[in-house]
Amino acid sequence: MKDIVNIGLAGFGTVGGATYEVLKRNARDLTRRTGVAMRVTRVVCRNQQKARARLNGDDVQLSSDWHDLVDDPSLDVVVEVMGGIEPAKSLVMAAIKAGKHVVTANKAMLATYGNEIFSAADAKGVTVAFEASVAGGIPIIKALREGLSANRIEWIAGIINGTSNFILSTMRDTGASFDACLAKAQELGYAEADPTFDIEGQDAAHKITILSALAFGTPVNYGAAMIEGISKLEAVDIRYAEELGYRIKLLGITKRTSEGVELRVHPALVPMRRLMASVEGVMNAVVVKGDAVGTVMLHGRGAGGEPTASAVIADLCDVSRMLANGNSPVPIFGEHDQEVGWLPIEKTVSSYYLRIGVKDEPGVLADVSRVFADNAISVESMMQKEAPVGASGTEIVIMTHSTTEGAIRRAVRTIEALESVTSRVVLLRKEELN
Amino acid sequence: MKDIVNIGLAGFGTVGGATYEVLKRNARDLTRRTGVAMRVTRVVCRNQQKARARLNGDDVQLSSDWHDLVDDPSLDVVVEVMGGIEPAKSLVMAAIKAGKHVVTANKAMLATYGNEIFSAADAKGVTVAFEASVAGGIPIIKALREGLSANRIEWIAGIINGTSNFILSTMRDTGASFDACLAKAQELGYAEADPTFDIEGQDAAHKITILSALAFGTPVNYGAAMIEGISKLEAVDIRYAEELGYRIKLLGITKRTSEGVELRVHPALVPMRRLMASVEGVMNAVVVKGDAVGTVMLHGRGAGGEPTASAVIADLCDVSRMLANGNSPVPIFGEHDQEVGWLPIEKTVSSYYLRIGVKDEPGVLADVSRVFADNAISVESMMQKEAPVGASGTEIVIMTHSTTEGAIRRAVRTIEALESVTSRVVLLRKEELN
Repeated sequence: MKDIVNIGLAGFGTVGGATYEVLKRNARDLTRRTGVAMRVTRVVCRNQQKARARLNGDDVQLSSDWHDLVDDPSLDVVVEVMGGIEPAKSLVMAAIKAGKHVVTANKAMLATYGNEIFSAADAKGVTVAFEASVAGGIPIIKALREGLSANRIEWIAGIINGTSNFILSTMRDTGASFDACLAKAQELGYAEADPTFDIEGQDAAHKITILSALAFGTPVNYGAAMIEGISKLEAVDIRYAEELGYRIKLLGITKRTSEGVELRVHPALVPMRRLMASVEGVMNAVVVKGDAVGTVMLHGRGAGGEPTASAVIADLCDVSRMLANGNSPVPIFGEHDQEVGWLPIEKTVSSYYLRIGVKDEPGVLADVSRVFADNAISVESMMQKEAPVGASGTEIVIMTHSTTEGAIRRAVRTIEALESVTSRVVLLRKEELN
Repeated sequence: MKDIVNIGLAGFGTVGGATYEVLKRNARDLTRRTGVAMRVTRVVCRNQQKARARLNGDDVQLSSDWHDLVDDPSLDVVVEVMGGIEPAKSLVMAAIKAGKHVVTANKAMLATYGNEIFSAADAKGVTVAFEASVAGGIPIIKALREGLSANRIEWIAGIINGTSNFILSTMRDTGASFDACLAKAQELGYAEADPTFDIEGQDAAHKITILSALAFGTPVNYGAAMIEGISKLEAVDIRYAEELGYRIKLLGITKRTSEGVELRVHPALVPMRRLMASVEGVMNAVVVKGDAVGTVMLHGRGAGGEPTASAVIADLCDVSRMLANGNSPVPIFGEHDQEVGWLPIEKTVSSYYLRIGVKDEPGVLADVSRVFADNAISVESMMQKEAPVGASGTEIVIMTHSTTEGAIRRAVRTIEALESVTSRVVLLRKEELN
């Protein structure tokens, strides 16, 4: 049983720095809550000078080699907030091997190497905590692992990339193009110079991969994710969706079906009356549907120094309470559920929004309708729209009833080959979230 | 270290029955997650016949005397879902004394006798878990105690009484009176035959009392709560609030100020753009503002058999994991924070909405304005409204800037004494929730 917990920090950027500050600022409350004093005694980072300024004379060992954390026998916990796969993964594996508990915010690392990392930790009897890896300050990992543990989880849907949600909110508010709104996001510091990971959906896919494994008791399987970003989204589809009563959000979705688990990231039409449709700007939100609880939504800041530090320190509190009470760690994932597999994307069931550029001539609607009928896809509504300025012909916007991804893809291929169709088909999925 | 956890259930009504069902239905997942088998071996309830039918031949001991739970040495945990103060409190105290862990959904008992119960449990080294006591299936207790433990909590605001929220939503949607909407709620089973506890705010006050103690590390202090219900709310104020850009919600609020903790329940004007304003029907939502995380909102079903069972079983999972790993319980509240006291209600700061019936004659506005000026209350807006059909005179609706409850109460008393004022003043508080 300990009354002081010694912490080593790997990374002293936005999140590492905020973690240090909040630990210091709220030290009294943290000790009251956990029964121990948590103190950062060692920091490893690249920019020593900046770090020294921020440490402001505090008694903390500072160096640039992550091995120093592993080799320091006084450290109880290593906090990994460097980001990126390497050297983060080597550090985490070495820290586990040295018998240290690990707290990490690294979604890319966990979505890719989580299985290896978690089984090493279980074997060694240490914990790897990762609340900060998904949705920043929102305690969604704890909610899934503990707060909702009574439930058989049916699905999870999350707005879990603030950059994309800011861009989509701005596109809707201003009617501006994706490129213009991305530029705005970059100007405000909400998007990085290279925004690929955020706007193409990989970041959201890392996060939903982690949530999926927790919810369904499966190994993490980033490779199973279907990923579609928002960079090709056009303002006109946001407008049409509004007319139909929907907002477009980039969702990470994982769903349990009788045939396997779905794992996907894509822009989706969400009914306006759902709270999820009102999640604006850089905010994140996750909805969990459980068999007993129904839907539960958690909403908050998904990124930024202090919100992420909030999650890192929550994990540190858990580890500290465990050390304070002389308790052994609870296994991270529990047993994997051997009965659960993954659903091939073609078998995913959804309703769809399609926008199709067509020649303005008789018979076009009949041709298109025929394709849906041939693929046994039932159409909910069909609207004819004026073509954008400068374009010839007209556009039709179609909402379907539920069908499979396989069927809709076949239909799209056939439609695009029609002589009367003048553009590629814009295809978006609809999620009712109820 | 255990691999079977024996559970005794006190109460087999909506929540007790659902707890039993969900434990059975999700047994496989629960064992996978906790490493132990949880089984209900004893049930105590009033209606033996109904219980026996529901147990459907399962091997469970059934009786009507709660002492049977305390006296059964094989039970690890007692789940108290009887409700009401007695005999619930006697059972809980006796179970603690017998060294059993306790899971309870009983907000009234905890808000009133929580200090006594928690210190008995700490002294005995058992845990009293109470996720189900606030907001049903929403894991807000765990979020506060663990998920947000990094933060210095600034305030909490919750829509934590589904009956009231259903009535308020219906009043807004239909324009109908409070009485009509209460009757509708009773018809749908959302309000009890005697709805006093829900509509007069006591139920919400029990819940916010518990959240307040957790957030600020204070003893539970139900007596410190200011409580105002919705039974006197008129449809016209809901309409005027809408015109001003607000929705009226019954909020439980607790706030930390430099002078002490506020604890109150009352109808409040919430800006429409907040997600909280869109929480409809019987749904619950709680917003927590932390210094690091900012605002986090949790939303879901606040009542009902299975949502509440979800919370009860989450607690059972925590207890079971602890028993499975041979761990000792983590203290329930941590040390009380000796530096925190309560704020007298007169010192509470808010903005206010006032509706005042006045004679339609010159000088009235000047008289009323003078009262605000005399009390150093700054007026944000003032609107003159037609009086309701059948009434003489007119009405003025005023929104103030921030002022103290003491100042506004003095102003209201003076205004009501004015010769030109023809009715009691309707006074509502505004909460920005940002």
